[in-house]
Amino acid sequence: MIFTKKLQRAVNSSNSILSVGLDPDPVIIPRPLKQQFSDTHDQVFEFCRRVIEATKTDVVAYKPNLAFFEALGVGGWRVLEALMDTIPAAKITIADAKRGDIGSTSEMYKRTFFDQLQADAVTLNPLMGLDTLDPYLQDETKAVFVLAMTSNKGAADFLRTPVMGRRSLGEYIAELLQKKQTSSQTHIGMVVGATQTDIAGQILRVNGNSHLLIPGIGAQGGRVEDLQGVLSGHDGIPIVNSSRSIIYAGGDEENWEELVQKKAAETCQSLHSIAKHYIQTKV
Amino acid sequence: MIFTKKLQRAVNSSNSILSVGLDPDPVIIPRPLKQQFSDTHDQVFEFCRRVIEATKTDVVAYKPNLAFFEALGVGGWRVLEALMDTIPAAKITIADAKRGDIGSTSEMYKRTFFDQLQADAVTLNPLMGLDTLDPYLQDETKAVFVLAMTSNKGAADFLRTPVMGRRSLGEYIAELLQKKQTSSQTHIGMVVGATQTDIAGQILRVNGNSHLLIPGIGAQGGRVEDLQGVLSGHDGIPIVNSSRSIIYAGGDEENWEELVQKKAAETCQSLHSIAKHYIQTKV
Repeated sequence: MIFTKKLQRAVNSSNSILSVGLDPDPVIIPRPLKQQFSDTHDQVFEFCRRVIEATKTDVVAYKPNLAFFEALGVGGWRVLEALMDTIPAAKITIADAKRGDIGSTSEMYKRTFFDQLQADAVTLNPLMGLDTLDPYLQDETKAVFVLAMTSNKGAADFLRTPVMGRRSLGEYIAELLQKKQTSSQTHIGMVVGATQTDIAGQILRVNGNSHLLIPGIGAQGGRVEDLQGVLSGHDGIPIVNSSRSIIYAGGDEENWEELVQKKAAETCQSLHSIAKHYIQTKV
Repeated sequence: MIFTKKLQRAVNSSNSILSVGLDPDPVIIPRPLKQQFSDTHDQVFEFCRRVIEATKTDVVAYKPNLAFFEALGVGGWRVLEALMDTIPAAKITIADAKRGDIGSTSEMYKRTFFDQLQADAVTLNPLMGLDTLDPYLQDETKAVFVLAMTSNKGAADFLRTPVMGRRSLGEYIAELLQKKQTSSQTHIGMVVGATQTDIAGQILRVNGNSHLLIPGIGAQGGRVEDLQGVLSGHDGIPIVNSSRSIIYAGGDEENWEELVQKKAAETCQSLHSIAKHYIQTKV
């Protein structure tokens, strides 16, 4: 199935544009799980598996953050592969890798994320140039989400800097991505931070059909109202990601899964004013 | 031992500034090895182990390219961990990961490359801003090599673009890195491509003490003569990396290890006009 169709179906069936980021830090896994499982890898697997189970009716996508699995060494990859199998097939899976390299290296990363992990999408870093994307662009069932304007303060260093007559490097990236899409089978989406709504409008304007991965709501302070204004009229589907504020919503409580479920439902609901523009109802 | 001291000693003892990049592609591993080992992971391990053995007298550093190990899945990490143990302790190890992320994600990558793999250095991508470097900057025994001007054609898209009154984004990155070094324990080096000698001088001028990781000689076409001119007067130590042109120098020949050894020795020798400025001889 082509990526856009799968994403649209996932939005329709979940009534949601919320993505849950899987950033399992062994230190802050809920205590009840730590008491139940002695092995760190088992704790991480069970934590993520139960987060997925608790949130699946309210989310359109899951975004495992590769760093957290790699930090577990050899066993971390095994945990990630096993987790990918527990994510319902109708959901979008986004490997948050932020890779950016060239030629044979890029080809290897492509194999890892698309062929082995079988993620629907991967996040990429375009700094080295658009040739870094090439190995990923021959698969209409997949998407790449390319960093255009990230949600962190450091985005001011380079991404918010004016360049080539554009108001920001992010805007220039968006423009080149829009052109690149014309020769790509794979959907080229963008990462645009919810904390950057003062500048995001310019970026979306030059690349209006691009699906979006939007970090920065919740813990990072991005506001849904601001986001709604910026997204008005954007044709690509915005996937709004939240990680820590959902997956750690249960603290060390015995009923942490319920609290995670509640937080995901609330977050999904808070996004409904945006989501309703992207949900297609059956005729 | 602080990183600069370890690097200087490694340069002195090897009489070399050559780094060998470990990019083991299972498809083009020498046929004699494929005949000897049936398992891909064993082939990759043995290939890299023998490349290290064949080249160790002529090189100052090894740069495993993470993509090639990750593409092997769970077993790939095991292979990489085992290989790190076979690299002589006096050599510099550079995890070529080109990661760039923030906060807890960056912290996790730091643990993976510095604490688990015990690499001396890691390559990083600064696009998201200098706050991406923070978790790496508290260890004087380590270095980060930050992308400033890469060797690929795509560098023209963003890195060679003028920004903030500087002649290139790369130059601006170099300037910010130089400032960042003043508050960093970890050495902040730069990646500057050997194919970019027309523009590299500006970059080195604003950050003259930074050690360099220089890709792009050999297969990518960078010329030692050009590099020599640009490096004249640069105080940081240039580590010149070559990957494919050395590790695959033996083709499918029975004596492939000899041919790899010969190519490494030749490449080391070809760099001597640069290296001699950085080798400290005992008094």
